[in-house]
Amino acid sequence: MAKQIPSVTVSRLVAYLRVLTALEEKGVDYVTSEELGAAARVSAHQVRKDLVHVRENQRQGRNGGASDRGHDHASGTRGRGYTVPILRRELSSILGLTRPWNVAIVGMGHLGKAIARYPYFESSNFALRCGFDVDPRKVDPTNELLPVYPMAEMPERARQLELDIALLTVPGEAAEDAARAIERAKIPGILNFAPTAIAVAPPGHVESVDFVAGLKRLAYYLNPEPAAEAEALTADD
Amino acid sequence: MAKQIPSVTVSRLVAYLRVLTALEEKGVDYVTSEELGAAARVSAHQVRKDLVHVRENQRQGRNGGASDRGHDHASGTRGRGYTVPILRRELSSILGLTRPWNVAIVGMGHLGKAIARYPYFESSNFALRCGFDVDPRKVDPTNELLPVYPMAEMPERARQLELDIALLTVPGEAAEDAARAIERAKIPGILNFAPTAIAVAPPGHVESVDFVAGLKRLAYYLNPEPAAEAEALTADD
Repeated sequence: MAKQIPSVTVSRLVAYLRVLTALEEKGVDYVTSEELGAAARVSAHQVRKDLVHVRENQRQGRNGGASDRGHDHASGTRGRGYTVPILRRELSSILGLTRPWNVAIVGMGHLGKAIARYPYFESSNFALRCGFDVDPRKVDPTNELLPVYPMAEMPERARQLELDIALLTVPGEAAEDAARAIERAKIPGILNFAPTAIAVAPPGHVESVDFVAGLKRLAYYLNPEPAAEAEALTADD
Repeated sequence: MAKQIPSVTVSRLVAYLRVLTALEEKGVDYVTSEELGAAARVSAHQVRKDLVHVRENQRQGRNGGASDRGHDHASGTRGRGYTVPILRRELSSILGLTRPWNVAIVGMGHLGKAIARYPYFESSNFALRCGFDVDPRKVDPTNELLPVYPMAEMPERARQLELDIALLTVPGEAAEDAARAIERAKIPGILNFAPTAIAVAPPGHVESVDFVAGLKRLAYYLNPEPAAEAEALTADD
């Protein structure tokens, strides 16, 4: 069965989860779709529509198709809103964040090293297990922060450490070869940091971290409106 | 006049622009909303709706409110679709990508160093002008790749180099202080790489590069469906 939630919706669910986690840490019990939408920068209507996916997924997966509306905390009660800890747990479960994931860094240059020090991995379900590099000077299997193995050992280490996700942090021109090595080592997930489009065959999956898109969004917001008189003319248009 | 295009739409315009640039490089002259949507992973309907913003913006800004439907290449002709080079140019203009932007890296640790070597800056409208760091050992004003100045010099360098955008690559615990320093130096844009929420007063603007969101999207796609029998039961639900 193919994944049924579209990728743009998954991105929004991830954003809602971030908001809900912050609210739960602050001890907030309820949140309305208006509040959740405002914090995630989408409309309340969009929030309600997206959370239909949550309910459908819950009913199909957990209850084997049987409706459980009597305890349907995720759908919210008019006025009071969604129950924060329950919705957070349900979103975590749908996104696959209640199980551990074994992560490796492929490419131990500056970017790989920066990620190896990223505090998130110490406190999340994503466990950084090792790094790989083609450069023998970067290989360091006994490193305390993160053992780094040669690329050639990837299939064997992937099996032994049950690696799920490779963070692809090699330079752009090396990305394609590295992606093929990751595929051969049967690591199903790639988070691509390289400025190169990467594809893998199913059931593998690639997501990209595109900081250039962030730069471009920023340019839009910093750029003055094209004409000062635009506002006055809008009404006639 | 406040920016009128919602941030989620801006993200999609950035995605369309990436697709259009690739098509233009391949010499493709026309693209339908279906093709553009498929490549950007959104519906054709969404593409057409978003590009209404383009037309509105063009009419208001360039033509001072006068409609220019006779030459409205961006809106496409039924069957043939949008004219690739024209739509690409119009999107670039709306996103503020036809003017140069002066960029600085704030925090010359591993992440800052990785970004300083990123080839994108050599071939785009975003020009990397300098770096800043609090650590005197990282300060290096005569570095050929990128001069690195002390944080204390930020206001003076920002004025002199006309800095528009700061890439915030300091550790999470230093991000808030660094953001205040960037604000005091009157650098209006921040692209935040730190795992910390950052806010600035208007007309400043912050966008974030959140690689953890990418990890979570990946977890969703790699996680097996909650129950094997879900598919058979869907029809009854």
